[in-house]
Amino acid sequence: MATDPLPAYARIRYSMRAHYDAPTVHAILDAGLVGHLSFIADGRPMTVPLAYARDGACLYLHGASKTRFVKLCRDAAPLCLSVTILDGIVAARSAFHHSVNYRCAIVHGHARAVEDAAEHDHALQLITEHLLPGRYGEVRPMLPKERKATGVVALEIETASAKIRTGPPVDDEDDLTLGLWSGVVPVVTALGRGIADNHTPEGLPEPASLAAARRKFAE
Amino acid sequence: MATDPLPAYARIRYSMRAHYDAPTVHAILDAGLVGHLSFIADGRPMTVPLAYARDGACLYLHGASKTRFVKLCRDAAPLCLSVTILDGIVAARSAFHHSVNYRCAIVHGHARAVEDAAEHDHALQLITEHLLPGRYGEVRPMLPKERKATGVVALEIETASAKIRTGPPVDDEDDLTLGLWSGVVPVVTALGRGIADNHTPEGLPEPASLAAARRKFAE
Repeated sequence: MATDPLPAYARIRYSMRAHYDAPTVHAILDAGLVGHLSFIADGRPMTVPLAYARDGACLYLHGASKTRFVKLCRDAAPLCLSVTILDGIVAARSAFHHSVNYRCAIVHGHARAVEDAAEHDHALQLITEHLLPGRYGEVRPMLPKERKATGVVALEIETASAKIRTGPPVDDEDDLTLGLWSGVVPVVTALGRGIADNHTPEGLPEPASLAAARRKFAE
Repeated sequence: MATDPLPAYARIRYSMRAHYDAPTVHAILDAGLVGHLSFIADGRPMTVPLAYARDGACLYLHGASKTRFVKLCRDAAPLCLSVTILDGIVAARSAFHHSVNYRCAIVHGHARAVEDAAEHDHALQLITEHLLPGRYGEVRPMLPKERKATGVVALEIETASAKIRTGPPVDDEDDLTLGLWSGVVPVVTALGRGIADNHTPEGLPEPASLAAARRKFAE
């Protein structure tokens, strides 16, 4: 698309519901809350849920410096990050045509350890603010020992695809007159009002980042 | 636990938030809407979102007979299914202590193609009714050609773990008096009223499966 400076990603799979342009993939990555990262460990596939953030065509992930996926960077291991937003349950007139409405982005790349101090800080800010926009400036600054304890992994998007299903069920023509109920059950994910902990001063209003998060994830 | 006939699963990783008993793992699998399945394809990790259902210590997955993961059964490939339910964003007084409240089950096993007709039918009913309890009996029965077009994979749970975080932020003692707002932003996933398609008879009430689904996923 002309409005996006990034190249279209390579095609890795064809599907009626598949998209391979960067803006579509990026929009799903930006709208998701948590991702599922998969990698190969001891010859087996392994998946972990985790927070992430996007910066152009680069995804940032973080974890305790000792965790398995951070250690994978030493080997530039292949990674796959999948972000799925469920929008509805599609109830058709036959079990066969049942489906779900969803948006999913699947990204492939290789792990790169982020060692540069400025990039490390930038990544941690982006990961924090992916969920709570503006939060980094509201809290106590990061300490050197905290930076040391936090491993950051960069995953440059090498190939990616998006799969999207929207709309009503697609029933067989013969089934349309069966007199059955068919349609979509919406699935909505929403953020509520913040629940302050016991050490928050009485009467202190919610910080701006919470309202920003509710706006961001309201769609 | 004495109330569950299944053995505890083998420990695959230790964590403060980890659980390895079957009832905890099963409860998360039953409460999740969609899962993320990972497998190894051409030496790379691959993850796809998909519907699933649990029957005791066996998970059932399905897909078009021609899809890659169904073909994996020929090689009894190792699979990993991850189901995550996000419950809240944990906003601490430092970026370092930000977190999320979540329930995640991670299951490992090997792919087995379901060839037996009775088990195939049973699995498709369970997968349909995982999202819409009772739906199988409300719709037009499955046709032989539909059965043939649908590949079913069984994943016997060999090892599994659950990771759960609940509660408020855990801030550093020194940060508690900073006068900052700290707490949890609830994340709620809910099912709405069904939206009937254009071929549903006017005035036909929602089928019982939709209300059953709303009750099931209301927590």
